[in-house]
Amino acid sequence: MVGTPVAEDKFSFGLWTVGWRANDPFGEPTRAALDPVETVHRLAELGAWGVTFHDDDLIPFGSDDSERARRISRFRAALDETGLVVPMATTNLFTHPVFKDGALTSNDRDIRRFALRKVMRNMDLAAELGATTYVLWGGREGSETDAAKTVSAALDRYREGIDTLARYVLDQGYDLRLALEPKPNEPRGDILLPTIGHALAFISTLEHHELVGVNPEVGHEQMAGLNFVHGIGQALWQGKLFHIDLNGQHGPRYDQDLVFGHGDVLSAFFLVDLLEHGGYDGPRHFDFKPPRTEDAEGVWDSAAACMRSYLLLRERARSFRADPRVIEALEQSRVPELSRPTLLDGESPADLLADRAAFEDFDAEAAARRGYGYARLSQLAFDHLLGEA
Amino acid sequence: MVGTPVAEDKFSFGLWTVGWRANDPFGEPTRAALDPVETVHRLAELGAWGVTFHDDDLIPFGSDDSERARRISRFRAALDETGLVVPMATTNLFTHPVFKDGALTSNDRDIRRFALRKVMRNMDLAAELGATTYVLWGGREGSETDAAKTVSAALDRYREGIDTLARYVLDQGYDLRLALEPKPNEPRGDILLPTIGHALAFISTLEHHELVGVNPEVGHEQMAGLNFVHGIGQALWQGKLFHIDLNGQHGPRYDQDLVFGHGDVLSAFFLVDLLEHGGYDGPRHFDFKPPRTEDAEGVWDSAAACMRSYLLLRERARSFRADPRVIEALEQSRVPELSRPTLLDGESPADLLADRAAFEDFDAEAAARRGYGYARLSQLAFDHLLGEA
Amino acid sequence: MVGTPVAEDKFSFGLWTVGWRANDPFGEPTRAALDPVETVHRLAELGAWGVTFHDDDLIPFGSDDSERARRISRFRAALDETGLVVPMATTNLFTHPVFKDGALTSNDRDIRRFALRKVMRNMDLAAELGATTYVLWGGREGSETDAAKTVSAALDRYREGIDTLARYVLDQGYDLRLALEPKPNEPRGDILLPTIGHALAFISTLEHHELVGVNPEVGHEQMAGLNFVHGIGQALWQGKLFHIDLNGQHGPRYDQDLVFGHGDVLSAFFLVDLLEHGGYDGPRHFDFKPPRTEDAEGVWDSAAACMRSYLLLRERARSFRADPRVIEALEQSRVPELSRPTLLDGESPADLLADRAAFEDFDAEAAARRGYGYARLSQLAFDHLLGEA
Amino acid sequence: MVGTPVAEDKFSFGLWTVGWRANDPFGEPTRAALDPVETVHRLAELGAWGVTFHDDDLIPFGSDDSERARRISRFRAALDETGLVVPMATTNLFTHPVFKDGALTSNDRDIRRFALRKVMRNMDLAAELGATTYVLWGGREGSETDAAKTVSAALDRYREGIDTLARYVLDQGYDLRLALEPKPNEPRGDILLPTIGHALAFISTLEHHELVGVNPEVGHEQMAGLNFVHGIGQALWQGKLFHIDLNGQHGPRYDQDLVFGHGDVLSAFFLVDLLEHGGYDGPRHFDFKPPRTEDAEGVWDSAAACMRSYLLLRERARSFRADPRVIEALEQSRVPELSRPTLLDGESPADLLADRAAFEDFDAEAAARRGYGYARLSQLAFDHLLGEA
Repeated sequence: MVGTPVAEDKFSFGLWTVGWRANDPFGEPTRAALDPVETVHRLAELGAWGVTFHDDDLIPFGSDDSERARRISRFRAALDETGLVVPMATTNLFTHPVFKDGALTSNDRDIRRFALRKVMRNMDLAAELGATTYVLWGGREGSETDAAKTVSAALDRYREGIDTLARYVLDQGYDLRLALEPKPNEPRGDILLPTIGHALAFISTLEHHELVGVNPEVGHEQMAGLNFVHGIGQALWQGKLFHIDLNGQHGPRYDQDLVFGHGDVLSAFFLVDLLEHGGYDGPRHFDFKPPRTEDAEGVWDSAAACMRSYLLLRERARSFRADPRVIEALEQSRVPELSRPTLLDGESPADLLADRAAFEDFDAEAAARRGYGYARLSQLAFDHLLGEA
Repeated sequence: MVGTPVAEDKFSFGLWTVGWRANDPFGEPTRAALDPVETVHRLAELGAWGVTFHDDDLIPFGSDDSERARRISRFRAALDETGLVVPMATTNLFTHPVFKDGALTSNDRDIRRFALRKVMRNMDLAAELGATTYVLWGGREGSETDAAKTVSAALDRYREGIDTLARYVLDQGYDLRLALEPKPNEPRGDILLPTIGHALAFISTLEHHELVGVNPEVGHEQMAGLNFVHGIGQALWQGKLFHIDLNGQHGPRYDQDLVFGHGDVLSAFFLVDLLEHGGYDGPRHFDFKPPRTEDAEGVWDSAAACMRSYLLLRERARSFRADPRVIEALEQSRVPELSRPTLLDGESPADLLADRAAFEDFDAEAAARRGYGYARLSQLAFDHLLGEA
Repeated sequence: MVGTPVAEDKFSFGLWTVGWRANDPFGEPTRAALDPVETVHRLAELGAWGVTFHDDDLIPFGSDDSERARRISRFRAALDETGLVVPMATTNLFTHPVFKDGALTSNDRDIRRFALRKVMRNMDLAAELGATTYVLWGGREGSETDAAKTVSAALDRYREGIDTLARYVLDQGYDLRLALEPKPNEPRGDILLPTIGHALAFISTLEHHELVGVNPEVGHEQMAGLNFVHGIGQALWQGKLFHIDLNGQHGPRYDQDLVFGHGDVLSAFFLVDLLEHGGYDGPRHFDFKPPRTEDAEGVWDSAAACMRSYLLLRERARSFRADPRVIEALEQSRVPELSRPTLLDGESPADLLADRAAFEDFDAEAAARRGYGYARLSQLAFDHLLGEA
Repeated sequence: MVGTPVAEDKFSFGLWTVGWRANDPFGEPTRAALDPVETVHRLAELGAWGVTFHDDDLIPFGSDDSERARRISRFRAALDETGLVVPMATTNLFTHPVFKDGALTSNDRDIRRFALRKVMRNMDLAAELGATTYVLWGGREGSETDAAKTVSAALDRYREGIDTLARYVLDQGYDLRLALEPKPNEPRGDILLPTIGHALAFISTLEHHELVGVNPEVGHEQMAGLNFVHGIGQALWQGKLFHIDLNGQHGPRYDQDLVFGHGDVLSAFFLVDLLEHGGYDGPRHFDFKPPRTEDAEGVWDSAAACMRSYLLLRERARSFRADPRVIEALEQSRVPELSRPTLLDGESPADLLADRAAFEDFDAEAAARRGYGYARLSQLAFDHLLGEA
């Protein structure tokens, strides 16, 4: 029997997730706005550990300073009352029409400068509230026609922007790391840094690349038909998985932001397995949308469902890894052998060339005949996923 | 009127393209094997400049040394007669059953060693024939179930493999650069390094990263629904576009390898525009498959079609860039403004913070109202593409 | 040189297309609302022939009777002044939260009844304004979880709804035909009647199936990766292409509603070819969205672009069909032979069995060797598309 | 604890599934050919009930009459020994190069006639072996360029072909029904009748439409991103689900033919739920491919896995339907209400118009506020799927 969430599970939610009013491209809101203070209390009751926000989630765009202070103070009081933490914050650089052609890569230089200032301002708040990760999703950094952007210029500006923000963090002495969130498309026809890979590659060119990692989202990679577990695996391998957005998606289509688990279940199983056993200890952050059909009760049901799905999958992944039949099947599939270096210690290309066993005397036909036992292994995973172990 | 191909166009073809016998997952070959010598002559007649090959295209797997020498010698003679060059070569690490679980990342260490030797052997030939790019497509480096591979171990082995090959190139003093070719899936369920981005990110971790770039293929990125022009733009921006595979594809589905241009025409237009005006001067390499419905005549018609499409699109792209209405429209869309740095020369984050014009006095509403003129700009591109200028 | 649009071209636009205020799932409107009267005048100036509408485009949801009458009267006056016709109307059964679980297939019976009444009311107006096609897009008829709908019950209700509406048309003696508009997903996770095929199949079960056809949209089919020309071909073949929505899309992703032509250009070319030469003489209706980056000028530029793209493609398709090289290539590809019946006139299965030439004496190997010449044929199409003939 | 398969489960496999030699577009076979007699015995041992075949699976293309008789006789003996039945048979109209441009819709009339004869010949055998379903998968009926086929002509020929075959069945007095198998693409660029919907629509135009239904395959619909459960729901609703092909797929990409369950698990759960509780009592036919990595042992492991996955999912679906919390949640989501007609018995459109409660007095705002409880319902399904009930 799976338990209920506790702080150690590090479950966090964005204000904008449960707070989504359920307007979509073809429909008006179906739910009233949620007061962030209520959200904090409800999340705490459900067993969440953290809450995250875009600047505009907490303080409406254009609020004056006293309104801003008032809202921050109420929010902080709710955090204090509940013990919820703010592990991450981010900037809304997409809702206001001023960002319609992008923020850090808008063709309009004044807008780029405004965007940087908007981020810096909210970084101050993030640091003040104790966040250690600052996410940047460049949802408007893109185009609908390739004529609209010189990609090299856009990437120059993107790099300049991130470099400037990293410098700001260092100048201010904030304990913040930046995490870029890739997405292939929507709301722009094509978005720059469309996948985990493109973001990691871009980061390698940055002045303070050590400060910058990624915040991948399940659905964003699956919108490109990519294997999310592989992507997370590469991000971890490069030491760059700073944060993660958990939700569900049914392949290439609009961004669904389903309850975690309610998309590709098999992939969610292996994802939880990787997060739990692959060296990630950051937040388990849900970036989902309660279905538009739901009322307030359904909103909280769906938030609880995200955490329950994770816990169930964690339990299933643990039982999978602990099963002696699985351990034996992995051995038979030679999975551990992949961790053995291909070369001997200190072996040079010339040494390898001299090893006749590697080529001249290698029996390719015999090696080709051996099966890998993946059919059995994957059925064991399926059995454990279904609780039949 | 568009002309016929000349050597300066740098058009090259793989032996395996026109030589594809048209077997597919559901069908037997419809065409006889082509002799590489005939291919060289036919390509030369059509105006191609270069020819490329996998080791096994030229020398069947398992040939003995004298057979190998005989085949190389005949091929070299054909090159000499026609003047065709060999700008690139690559290794077949996917056809033989021994590679069914991968080559550099097979769970079987002996197979990994064999794969390295197979590559090294063909690198010797590549260098001997004057190639300057060595492509590595890891089509079998992947899995059908996430249980089958520990991604971090697989990437360790992948890095070890590429590092070893780069060291070999340096040890031998070859004038070769390596180019990794990404692909998201097929023939494996999911392939490691699935996109240009993932490959670039991986490269940034290599010992001799300066020797390694990418060889992106139009269809491979489009299978993930990604914007190929954006991907090539990022590869160029990172100085890593070492080679390119041109063909056509209709979005996420099986790998179609259509004639170049016969897929997403608008993207092909902007791709040629970028290659011609974005600083790439390497080969224009066609990696396509003549339709399975075609006989030998159709094979050569389709090879000619690849080059003709490129030349037509190049002519259209040139007329687009030269049109004063386009130049004015780009200006109105503020495209050149994206090349202006966002910060002033030497401006620090603190300076930016102090600039009230950037934030406090910025009129977001006014900036939001300005249109970007992309509708007009994209119609101008459409007009030029259709030869209506 | 392609001309400007004239009434005979039968170009029509929805009020909601140019009138889209450019709110999207991540952004607020970037443009002011358009007065339908202004839209009518601007469309007329651009050369459009018709204008179409959802009830709520013209008369805001909840308007009282006098407001309703006033708005209809102003609209009608604009039509009279400009000569624009109203070839089609439709109902908004998706924006208001009441339809969040569907309209004709909502689990809530009262909502289903309300939806029917809302359609009937606007059918009255459609008939009054002279429309001859009434479109039904069931954008909310679907679900996010398969547990939410019993498909057979949903289709029962869908059929009951359409049957009722068809009966209403007959009872009232309206000169209206109904056209169902398929879409695979968005805004619902999965929408019932997801493709042209599913809609045609459903129609075959209706009481008054002769009154009901389809209104396919380019992007909707391409969101499923389907060949739109094939779909339109089947709809025409079944005598069911009652109306068409022209726009552009880049494959499986969110519904882009690009300018017609600015998506898959090759498919747009063959689509126009089919519409012009395949027996369709209804409206050429553009259901697109001016990019969110555009101001009012860009809105009208993009509307003009839709028509210009169509006219350019029409000119290219005509030149393709008239080219003697094309006619000869079609002959060589045996395209006309596909119009010859496979059986002789009156030939029975038994007769076919007795024909040894068909099987026993048929030389499959010889027939297999013949090429189809599609490489040449498709390059001729490419050349004509690019105006290089 | 789930049991082992028994005959009553009606599990069947194609000879070509376990018999697939694992050649793919980039690789040679990794496994030896299987003798159909061995297959029959192994399937029987695993608990399968039926075996199916293409003509060429049993009798190689071009075999003479005595060879044919010998192979049929051995196969029949194996059936007799094991008690396995042959519920379905089909024709290979795709492997031989003669079908490279299609079979029933090849541009070459002689090939169309040959194809009909090839089908008729195997229908004789199917009837003789007791099959009651004859599947037709038109995998080569399509094109790579829209110029290659006049769709209306192709559909004319397709209809003529199916009409002829249906007449043959009637003339011969065979107890066979035909089942068309849709697929969107691969091996052709675009295949005619790409989805369940298109096939159902086509069937409605046939002379003996009552004899013809569909044989949908999980992966084929999911390659178009379509909801397979919805598609099967519509086929059942139209009385046309004659047969089904069970396997797994990861969305739009090449045809993966994974083990049943090892793709979209949630969809597989709801599919089994529908098959078990929605009125289907035909074969549960697995059309999958054992992974290319597997040896003979892995082949049989994967066949067993298909059946085990089905049985596990059936058990989970039964527990879902029996759970009182689920029954109550369905009620709260008003799912049963969708089975109530929207109109009163005998209510006419005029009656509906006169019902003020339906429109004038309907409180849309109040109805809009009610939530549908789908979040809770879908989490209950997730829990049951994971065996946590």
